[in-house]
Amino acid sequence: MTSLDDLPLRDELRGETPYGAPQLDVPVQLNTNENPYRPSETVVADMAAAVAEAARGLNRYPDRDAVALRAGLAEYLTADGGVPLATEQVWAANGSNEVVLQLLLAFGGPGRTAVSFAPTYSMYPEYARDSHTEWVLGRRADDFTIDREHALGVIAEHRPSVVLLASPNNPTGTALPIDDIAAIVAAAPGVVIVDEAYGEFRRSGVPSALSLLPDSPRLVVTRTMSKAFALAGGRVGYLAASPAVVDAVRIVRLPYHLSSTTQAVAGAALRHADELLGAVAELRAERDRTVAWLRGRGLQAADSDANFVLFGTFADRHAVWQGLLDRGVLIRETGPDGWLRVSIGTPAEMAAFRTALEEVTA
Amino acid sequence: MTSLDDLPLRDELRGETPYGAPQLDVPVQLNTNENPYRPSETVVADMAAAVAEAARGLNRYPDRDAVALRAGLAEYLTADGGVPLATEQVWAANGSNEVVLQLLLAFGGPGRTAVSFAPTYSMYPEYARDSHTEWVLGRRADDFTIDREHALGVIAEHRPSVVLLASPNNPTGTALPIDDIAAIVAAAPGVVIVDEAYGEFRRSGVPSALSLLPDSPRLVVTRTMSKAFALAGGRVGYLAASPAVVDAVRIVRLPYHLSSTTQAVAGAALRHADELLGAVAELRAERDRTVAWLRGRGLQAADSDANFVLFGTFADRHAVWQGLLDRGVLIRETGPDGWLRVSIGTPAEMAAFRTALEEVTA
Repeated sequence: MTSLDDLPLRDELRGETPYGAPQLDVPVQLNTNENPYRPSETVVADMAAAVAEAARGLNRYPDRDAVALRAGLAEYLTADGGVPLATEQVWAANGSNEVVLQLLLAFGGPGRTAVSFAPTYSMYPEYARDSHTEWVLGRRADDFTIDREHALGVIAEHRPSVVLLASPNNPTGTALPIDDIAAIVAAAPGVVIVDEAYGEFRRSGVPSALSLLPDSPRLVVTRTMSKAFALAGGRVGYLAASPAVVDAVRIVRLPYHLSSTTQAVAGAALRHADELLGAVAELRAERDRTVAWLRGRGLQAADSDANFVLFGTFADRHAVWQGLLDRGVLIRETGPDGWLRVSIGTPAEMAAFRTALEEVTA
Repeated sequence: MTSLDDLPLRDELRGETPYGAPQLDVPVQLNTNENPYRPSETVVADMAAAVAEAARGLNRYPDRDAVALRAGLAEYLTADGGVPLATEQVWAANGSNEVVLQLLLAFGGPGRTAVSFAPTYSMYPEYARDSHTEWVLGRRADDFTIDREHALGVIAEHRPSVVLLASPNNPTGTALPIDDIAAIVAAAPGVVIVDEAYGEFRRSGVPSALSLLPDSPRLVVTRTMSKAFALAGGRVGYLAASPAVVDAVRIVRLPYHLSSTTQAVAGAALRHADELLGAVAELRAERDRTVAWLRGRGLQAADSDANFVLFGTFADRHAVWQGLLDRGVLIRETGPDGWLRVSIGTPAEMAAFRTALEEVTA
């Protein structure tokens, strides 16, 4: 039997395992920051109708530039960020994963460096590895923000062609002050990607980095329909930037990367944005209640602008994680030592989480 | 206005344009080797129903390993290739484009070489460029097969970690003799990818490289649902290989790369394989008639095991291409100097092609 060791796998991939949280079938799934609310039957029916229409032409390739979808996303982002965005400034792909990989294929690569600040999203080093970009990790402060002087120092030292900032950050939930982002964009010699996968969950008064776009041609803001739009299974990520950034990404994108059915489903989701985004306010309120409850129990809980909360600390976090799982509640063992991350579910799911955590930590 | 020149684009991408044929709205589209037959309303309805079912859970991430789809593809390939294949030997992604890029991310990269033989599929050098793999092109013989001694010489000289063989080849339609593939697999130090995107259109008696898999752990056969399954808009490519190759690809794949809707649509297509593949025999017959007609006109037409024909030669092929387009028939200006490629459409579309070509070359 041939094993992986017998194949000419790249050295840096040896011993690596595929990225991903355990996909376990448990009653309460609070481990991958999914939106707990399913689409209504109205939305389901419209998605099916849109796919039926697309299916009649599935023998043909999709619109390679996904123009209608990008126009819809531009309109949505214009409303969300308060800054006018044109179709030419928006690009979409199969999840923001693919968007960021495309950015690194265009702007990273051998002889170039990408910088981020830990703790942050654990996929970032994989994008760097797979695009052969040197990976430099600065650090976040104890409150999980980024110290501006530290950040500017790392950038001055390494002159990265790409800076990756998650805001709100995963797994900590931390939104960066807009002035810090602006300072980093001003100092960075290359492209600055602000990953706003959880942008719609930010607390009121917290601006989106979209507001910086008019003055920042090297700024890229990425978003996803997975979270606020409750479309994790649909795999649609997107970016907003100057048209030149979109031109760059189009050179390295695989042709016809976005299927006709994906474009149809995302279009239907945008038409029902009011319903799909309707749960965001409730999830934010439930998040704030969760933070307050955790702190009321004497635990630490990081300020969160996302649909999850990082909490702790525990001498043996794995035991707490396992205890919750034994009670049918799956959360994520991630983040700095001693911390755990819980996604915000329905009120009933959060009640189950609280009960289980009380039992485990009693 | 910021232009691409102001951004830190990689040097090797400067001046490059996005890959892709012109997407023009003309009556007779014979330029991208699409299958001209739309799915029936029965298939459309089943696809819509499958997507509706998936849509009810779209707030959740898809099955990261697409197990049900891969099982269905393994069953199909077992029947098509006559060699038993297990789910663990099959991998699927958003088009065979993504499959091959994943293979190059795993087995290519800086300091490594990929080899192919021209004329061949024009995306191959882009995969190499985007994965920073050195690209070496051998040549095909005058009849577009690969001279075995030449191929073994190129492989001995460059010791490629990846060899890419299209069979049937695009844009020439040429299927490689199975013994030549076996000899290359035996000699190559790395992975050999046989791209069978057009495999189902091969003439009777032409074996698939799938038949070599049991004895060739470094052989990878790629396929697509775009052509024979008439699912170009669905974007589903796949591979068959040893389980170790699948393990390698899983390390570099983006998590959740294949949406729930894509998995649902592809599953529906497999359930209706009899209908969707029903047109393959007709397309093969129409192709053979097209080859005979072209030769009857005194033109050259390459032997084809695909759903297109390379024909020529013309002193000014662009004028012929433009003349056809002026008559509402879009074909592809590709391949060696003087040749043109026409995809096989419906009998009515091929009649329009013949009429237009008669007028243009009169």
